Amino acid sequence: MTIHDYMARQAARVNEALERLTPPEHAAPETIHRAMRYSLFVGGKRIRPVLAIAAADAVTPDMAGIEDAACALEMIHTYSLIHDDLPALDNDDLRRGRPTCHKVFGEAVAILAGDALLTLAFEVLAKLPYCGPMRRARIITEVAASAGTQNGMIGGQVQDLEGEGQPPTAELLHAIHKGKTGALLRASVRLGGFYAGASDLQDEALSLYGNHIGLAFQIVDDILDVEQSSEQLGKTAGKDAAQGKITFPAVYGLKESREMADEQLELALAAVELFGGRAHWLRELAMLVVRRRA
Amino acid sequence: MTIHDYMARQAARVNEALERLTPPEHAAPETIHRAMRYSLFVGGKRIRPVLAIAAADAVTPDMAGIEDAACALEMIHTYSLIHDDLPALDNDDLRRGRPTCHKVFGEAVAILAGDALLTLAFEVLAKLPYCGPMRRARIITEVAASAGTQNGMIGGQVQDLEGEGQPPTAELLHAIHKGKTGALLRASVRLGGFYAGASDLQDEALSLYGNHIGLAFQIVDDILDVEQSSEQLGKTAGKDAAQGKITFPAVYGLKESREMADEQLELALAAVELFGGRAHWLRELAMLVVRRRA
Repeated sequence: MTIHDYMARQAARVNEALERLTPPEHAAPETIHRAMRYSLFVGGKRIRPVLAIAAADAVTPDMAGIEDAACALEMIHTYSLIHDDLPALDNDDLRRGRPTCHKVFGEAVAILAGDALLTLAFEVLAKLPYCGPMRRARIITEVAASAGTQNGMIGGQVQDLEGEGQPPTAELLHAIHKGKTGALLRASVRLGGFYAGASDLQDEALSLYGNHIGLAFQIVDDILDVEQSSEQLGKTAGKDAAQGKITFPAVYGLKESREMADEQLELALAAVELFGGRAHWLRELAMLVVRRRA
Repeated sequence: MTIHDYMARQAARVNEALERLTPPEHAAPETIHRAMRYSLFVGGKRIRPVLAIAAADAVTPDMAGIEDAACALEMIHTYSLIHDDLPALDNDDLRRGRPTCHKVFGEAVAILAGDALLTLAFEVLAKLPYCGPMRRARIITEVAASAGTQNGMIGGQVQDLEGEGQPPTAELLHAIHKGKTGALLRASVRLGGFYAGASDLQDEALSLYGNHIGLAFQIVDDILDVEQSSEQLGKTAGKDAAQGKITFPAVYGLKESREMADEQLELALAAVELFGGRAHWLRELAMLVVRRRA
């Protein structure tokens, strides 16, 4: 099985779970459920859920119900995209090749759809049927912290907004990245580990792996924003430069940024050595993150 | 001790816990923490947290740490006010007598501050130090459902938005209310019960009580919007009528609305009879909700 087959298989599993865990369109009030589903199912590689599943498999293969826990990560990621795209924030019209949520449903419903996905994520985690309450509480603590203001997603988003037009320093760049994308990617990997009963040592290894692929992911994202067209990315390309965002290419240049991504890949691979062969898909995913073209 | 003394004492306890559980203003990124604290500490009677504490005391007096759990309710309530006040939603400039969050910090930060308070609420609940993981999971499930789209707060908010200018039917009115304010008020009472180890029978009684005071609360809110001035309310008065909102006075008239509120009060009092003297503050709170002037 190639990594692409693996991704496709796990994404299908996640999509099936998302379908089941998200209120149907015909449930009242329909508008909000249509908006939530529009953004959830507009596409996306399900990288966070797949990372969680691969991490769980590295600790204890074939944990029942891991895909439900993984769905919460996609809900939180999707809520963050909906809110980031709003006119008051990044003001983006295009996401994954289609009009953004507020373009289709209006701003009010888009704000509420984001709120609803965030809320639903925690409901899903609190109710996980095959996961003891201790593990559920640990997972919710980690996910909430990674989505929050202190070294979390919202914190990174605020620093990103405030950083627009400021001198691009390496320090600010790393702080933004660590929160904005790094925290939830790391939480995805740790969630899988917690779900599968990781020891402290295993959790530490997964955390390290998460840090490195998180950083690699953001560096590659910034590079693609410079190099690719909007069509290839499925979102508006070249926006970072246009908005004066602090990016890796802006701070380090393209060549050094590419080298940094490769270095992070090596560190990620080294971090999961203690899992031996069971880390196969974690390794493949790390390579995919760095070599992707969109 | 009068109910006003009780409210003041519990509110002080809740404020102390909120102070401890919310990141300090000087923690980076400062803007978001300033915005969260501005809206959390702009005032408010802390009715939801106090209901939770009184419900817990009716089940098992003096539960350690109940105020931390109660804070999550105030965080969620505050997030919903911040987002409701946004220009794309109710577009309100005044809240609790002071400029709304987006008026002070801008729309982008207000959206993120709301997101952050919702996220923080779940982190607080997942980490409650004096509450076993089973109870924590049950509380998070209930709180998330009450804040969600299906018979929850966001669902009510969507129906409220969609109902503007529509013929004011009793059915739509009750659906909106049940979600928009009723669900979180009921969840507040149930949270207290769960925290204190309520039996199914006790939880049922608290749920009923929560339904009735939730309905009473909304009826009185609608009446006050008609009768009181903005100064008395600390928010823009008469907005319901101006926006063509569906309200109890609009559907039933003022006199019948007042009678309905009194009837809900009687039902709330009857629901908690099984707690005997331990329901003293729940009874006093129900009376306060119906007799308040702001």
